[in-house]
Amino acid sequence: MRRVAVVAAVFLIASYSIESSAQSKTLTARLGYAADSKLLIIHADDLAVAHSEDAASFDALDQGAASSASIMVPCPWLTEVADYAKAHPDADLGLHLTLTAEWKTDRWGPTESKDKVPSLLDPDGYLWPETPSAIQHIKTDDVERELRAQIEHAVAVGIHPTHLDSHMGVLFSRPDLFATYVKVAHEYKLPFLGMLGPNVSPEMRQSLSEKDVFPDAIVIANPSVAAGEWKNFYLNAIKNLKPGFTEIIVHLAHNDSEMQAVTVGHPDYGAAWRQRDFDVITSPEFKKALEENHVILIHWKDIKKLMN
Amino acid sequence: MRRVAVVAAVFLIASYSIESSAQSKTLTARLGYAADSKLLIIHADDLAVAHSEDAASFDALDQGAASSASIMVPCPWLTEVADYAKAHPDADLGLHLTLTAEWKTDRWGPTESKDKVPSLLDPDGYLWPETPSAIQHIKTDDVERELRAQIEHAVAVGIHPTHLDSHMGVLFSRPDLFATYVKVAHEYKLPFLGMLGPNVSPEMRQSLSEKDVFPDAIVIANPSVAAGEWKNFYLNAIKNLKPGFTEIIVHLAHNDSEMQAVTVGHPDYGAAWRQRDFDVITSPEFKKALEENHVILIHWKDIKKLMN
Repeated sequence: MRRVAVVAAVFLIASYSIESSAQSKTLTARLGYAADSKLLIIHADDLAVAHSEDAASFDALDQGAASSASIMVPCPWLTEVADYAKAHPDADLGLHLTLTAEWKTDRWGPTESKDKVPSLLDPDGYLWPETPSAIQHIKTDDVERELRAQIEHAVAVGIHPTHLDSHMGVLFSRPDLFATYVKVAHEYKLPFLGMLGPNVSPEMRQSLSEKDVFPDAIVIANPSVAAGEWKNFYLNAIKNLKPGFTEIIVHLAHNDSEMQAVTVGHPDYGAAWRQRDFDVITSPEFKKALEENHVILIHWKDIKKLMN
Repeated sequence: MRRVAVVAAVFLIASYSIESSAQSKTLTARLGYAADSKLLIIHADDLAVAHSEDAASFDALDQGAASSASIMVPCPWLTEVADYAKAHPDADLGLHLTLTAEWKTDRWGPTESKDKVPSLLDPDGYLWPETPSAIQHIKTDDVERELRAQIEHAVAVGIHPTHLDSHMGVLFSRPDLFATYVKVAHEYKLPFLGMLGPNVSPEMRQSLSEKDVFPDAIVIANPSVAAGEWKNFYLNAIKNLKPGFTEIIVHLAHNDSEMQAVTVGHPDYGAAWRQRDFDVITSPEFKKALEENHVILIHWKDIKKLMN
């Protein structure tokens, strides 16, 4: 069983064949830590998708169980997150740039006027439901307008984003989209989640700056992790952390009627999954594992400070 | 205490000084009932605003405790309602035409492209939060485009509306808006909730057709009804029903964390209010009162059949 968990732990690392960016190699020193330090961001995705997601994520941020989180600007609960952001100006909140609306019962459109981003819309006028359908249809110019609209809208409602990342990896899935993501991030002087590897095209690589800092490893649970192995999966991930910069991506919500309805028909990343993520990262065992393995929790805002 | 309840029961009736439309006078006969019949629609507003609202409303519709309901098309849970509509083709579902987004933490924009309806947007790009601010800003042409977009979108996702009404009464609040509402309803051959009275302008009256059927009375709980008097309020409304056509408007949801978050800071029409509405209309006492008072539950689709 442990073997399954460890395989899952390195799923994304293997999948994306991440290598260190130039800057991440020196990140430890630039942040003032010893060279062999294990720096970790525990990152909660999908804020604003539902009240249940917000409530669990705010709780984890308040406890220090999550060190960072990112927000889906086109989603209905953005105002709740904006209120939290204003009340917690030190919270490390980025934008989970969103080009898909993947659930069956709870869907959203773009932040930009629909007329200006026609390729982002499925036949019902919402964002495309899956990454492949999005990738097939969306046009670079529409994406750029939408990314700018999401950032501008977040700022307008009182959120000061510390970083950017990409919901369902859409912006990592086509070189022109990645280049647009990097261009917009550079203009707003925001660090962004990225991955490098042998399958990264020269075009994607060319868009990067020497200042960009990426994690050396990314850990995320996937459907191969059995529910009963959830805690072991994350405890093993912590035990196996290597010196350098790692991001663990979690999805936090309560297994309640709202979240069950949001994720209906989709057990992967569903309500019970998100409750398990919450239960593990707020557990005493997980906290103890962080301490025993001398893990240092950092934030995207720390990286943002180095960049500017 | 009863007196308070009775006063509240006739609040809207008094407020809007409803008189019978030409057709409502003959509705009883046209539907095949005796002249002194008490015809009642128990109408659940606000479907699609939240999963909690949908779950409680579907339950009440399935039990026959509500006879009709209407849907807020721009809201996030529309797809859940569309699934219900497709699985329940006989359900009496209309559109709660929506030009406001009144909650603090959960907001929505228009269904139409934002560029095409600029006057409907508040400074944050959502619909205006309150009827007065909406009335002050919205332009007739934008409203007409938005009403058509809401109807077309509902049909596109599989809903076949049986009637129209107006969220927060925005469309009843300016003669040009009322005329637009009537024009669109006539074009789509849909009956619509309306009210007549001495304060209805000649312009509003002129837009109506002889075919339009309005309730003789509308009953809706208001903040003067104490929580402990909720059941009495509705039981008295049933006891005091007059022959003719009455609509009781309810707002059904569970008093759960989602609905509490949706309605945060707003006890009027809040989560506990909606739970009380649900508890009363599904109670044995309420059912018994309907029977004892020989109330006949009807549907907007019955009226729609007469019109076409």
